Amino acid sequence: MIVGTEWLVEAFDADENALRDVEILRGVFACVIADLSLKTVGEASWHKFDGAGGVTGLVMLTESHLACHTYPEYRTATFNLYCCRTRPEWNWEANLREMLGANEVKITKIKRGNTESKIQNLKSKIAEAKV
Amino acid sequence: MIVGTEWLVEAFDADENALRDVEILRGVFACVIADLSLKTVGEASWHKFDGAGGVTGLVMLTESHLACHTYPEYRTATFNLYCCRTRPEWNWEANLREMLGANEVKITKIKRGNTESKIQNLKSKIAEAKV
Repeated sequence: MIVGTEWLVEAFDADENALRDVEILRGVFACVIADLSLKTVGEASWHKFDGAGGVTGLVMLTESHLACHTYPEYRTATFNLYCCRTRPEWNWEANLREMLGANEVKITKIKRGNTESKIQNLKSKIAEAKV
Repeated sequence: MIVGTEWLVEAFDADENALRDVEILRGVFACVIADLSLKTVGEASWHKFDGAGGVTGLVMLTESHLACHTYPEYRTATFNLYCCRTRPEWNWEANLREMLGANEVKITKIKRGNTESKIQNLKSKIAEAKV
């Protein structure tokens, strides 16, 4: 039984100052939530690591959760959006380019609650293709 | 650049009452955190959905985050453990069998911040195998 969809998003080659700026990252969360009509449960939690460190953000949704971790030292940010209600695609690539200056965005979409994960399916296909 | 490891865990065929019990799920978090010597940032957030609904839990870690969502109606729970510090494997299968009565546990381990995701690597291998 598929219980939800999770988007694992990696943003590369981003603006390191944006990745240390809690307000900018709050803005990303606000856009995801507004654009996809998600509903928050309680307040988001934010933590800025000391000095040149990055930011962690977490918010519970009635649809599941949204998380981000940033690594300014590698100009990288990662996001998880887990939704147990069907939602359209958010344009991570265009939005993270605009908001975080990310030059490359990779998205991996995973069905949660699936007994056969996507990776396992692909492994089976590899095995078949080799026969 | 790999910035962290994420374990996506699905527990199937679990005890539906355990999946509605915040205290039992708090216990799972406490064991993961203690066994892997993780450090929490602030308090965990817990939400019990109305009536026969499930539970959502989220906690920020200095190592990233731990999340769970339960679906008693499908006897399923999912967990995300994201760690940006190398940690040993937690025995999800034995522990979730004991704590949630889960008869089947699937684990997908993903390197975060990897420009080539595991799935993309596998797709390339499929393409090669077909040549």
